[in-house]
Amino acid sequence: MRRALVTGATSYPGQRLLARLMAEGIEVHALVRMTSDLARFDPLPHLPVIHPHDGSYAMMHDIMAETRPDIVFHLASHYVREHKPEQIDGLIESNLTFGLYLLEAMRQTGVPRLVNVGTFAQFYESPEYRPLSLYAATKQAFEDLLAYYVDLGLSATTLIFFDTYGPYDWRPRLVNALLDAWVNNTQLPLPESHVKVTLDLVYIDDAIEALWQAGRRLMTDPKPLSGRRFAIGSGDRHTLRQVVELFEQVSGREIIKAWGMWPLPDRHVITPWEGPNLPGWRPTVGLAEGLKRCLEARGHAG
Amino acid sequence: MRRALVTGATSYPGQRLLARLMAEGIEVHALVRMTSDLARFDPLPHLPVIHPHDGSYAMMHDIMAETRPDIVFHLASHYVREHKPEQIDGLIESNLTFGLYLLEAMRQTGVPRLVNVGTFAQFYESPEYRPLSLYAATKQAFEDLLAYYVDLGLSATTLIFFDTYGPYDWRPRLVNALLDAWVNNTQLPLPESHVKVTLDLVYIDDAIEALWQAGRRLMTDPKPLSGRRFAIGSGDRHTLRQVVELFEQVSGREIIKAWGMWPLPDRHVITPWEGPNLPGWRPTVGLAEGLKRCLEARGHAG
Repeated sequence: MRRALVTGATSYPGQRLLARLMAEGIEVHALVRMTSDLARFDPLPHLPVIHPHDGSYAMMHDIMAETRPDIVFHLASHYVREHKPEQIDGLIESNLTFGLYLLEAMRQTGVPRLVNVGTFAQFYESPEYRPLSLYAATKQAFEDLLAYYVDLGLSATTLIFFDTYGPYDWRPRLVNALLDAWVNNTQLPLPESHVKVTLDLVYIDDAIEALWQAGRRLMTDPKPLSGRRFAIGSGDRHTLRQVVELFEQVSGREIIKAWGMWPLPDRHVITPWEGPNLPGWRPTVGLAEGLKRCLEARGHAG
Repeated sequence: MRRALVTGATSYPGQRLLARLMAEGIEVHALVRMTSDLARFDPLPHLPVIHPHDGSYAMMHDIMAETRPDIVFHLASHYVREHKPEQIDGLIESNLTFGLYLLEAMRQTGVPRLVNVGTFAQFYESPEYRPLSLYAATKQAFEDLLAYYVDLGLSATTLIFFDTYGPYDWRPRLVNALLDAWVNNTQLPLPESHVKVTLDLVYIDDAIEALWQAGRRLMTDPKPLSGRRFAIGSGDRHTLRQVVELFEQVSGREIIKAWGMWPLPDRHVITPWEGPNLPGWRPTVGLAEGLKRCLEARGHAG
């Protein structure tokens, strides 16, 4: 693997993947929207080759023809928890049209490998496909389109991500909410205390390692991976209550818990999907260790 | 069922469905593109209520709110055999965006039932999903979007259509090619004579009966149908060679066969899918009888 193209490069996992690829000596190309915040690349050791994309097929083709990467990591995704009608266009545009342009441009220019990222929300309390949300449905629909290109000869695998977290994560998710409540000594709104929600929180380095290993396997031995999907879970699941308790243990201080102040949406995952593991990959950072690292990044010695 | 909305109403099956619904005394609404050829409705006993749609979600919502049908028959589809990059937008627009607008508008206005139409090309030499073409992949992708709305409470079933044919069919397909060669005494280009292709040619009235029965079942007892798909096959499959021979028998005259003059595409169905039958429905018109009716419609007494 000498040259890789990454979509969704300005996302948190995208930025971390870029850093990892650079550390491996790969020539890294980032496909970004015209409106993307390129300051996201500031923490990287050096800038990737940046390809602003105007949303058209023509430009997608040109970028692919000019770059000719050995592999594409497709992390771009538009997340909407509960959509409103006016958000449908954005979901189609980002999760279907953009991805389909990518696949078609790869086919037209002979780019042979893709690592795709799916979501555990495609498996809402079900071992088979059952979408939690329209967002999840569009991710599944994209896999249907991908299947066509795989049938034409593309080597592609889909990694099903759960919730990822890590140091310097800027997304408004649970671990950041815990950190904020802890740092600022503010209330943390939580669901009703009796609600049993299991979380699969995956430390970012483990998730990035899975992307990297999947990419390497597609380079050398694509057969066992191609056309399949794998679960990138932490192997260290906890209930929401346990996560809060563990955080308090690791941080050495209680936080102000407002149980019942965060109403769960009607549709929410109680038990995350359990799918086949990516062969050869194992998560290595348990939740206690991961939380510790996040606290350290916020300047807490533990 | 008092009021039905039909998409793809100007297609050949659409026109036939409209006639059938009218014969049953249903108030029929046709959702059509601004550019649709409304002359397609001329052979009908009377005009449906016509709703031109400009492609926007807003207008889709308004049409649905105004019409409030008991059921929607979703026949609209954009077919492309082997796509070129510039045809991707059309496939997404027609087979995904339009259908998703339809589903969302139904949800927002409380329209509770949908009969959807899929294609046997979603099962390319495979009992499971394997797309023959990008067209087939977009049809599958739409079913995965549909699954979300079914999970929210929509009653919907998907009928997998094979090749339909019938009197006054204007589409450039095999039966019309046979009729043209027969009427005009011209050469009929055919694949290499050794190629074994099995065809499942479904007489249009049988296909329409399946749509009608599926709709009725969704009205009275949706449970066994909803969230599932059914094969609408003829039960009378023949090889291409047999179809030609049968046509010659029925018409009483040989046609000029140019074997080898119609190159099969790289990807083509050899053995059509065999899926579960729609409960309670049976095809009743065999191929010989169906071809006879087509010949009669062309003014041949048989």
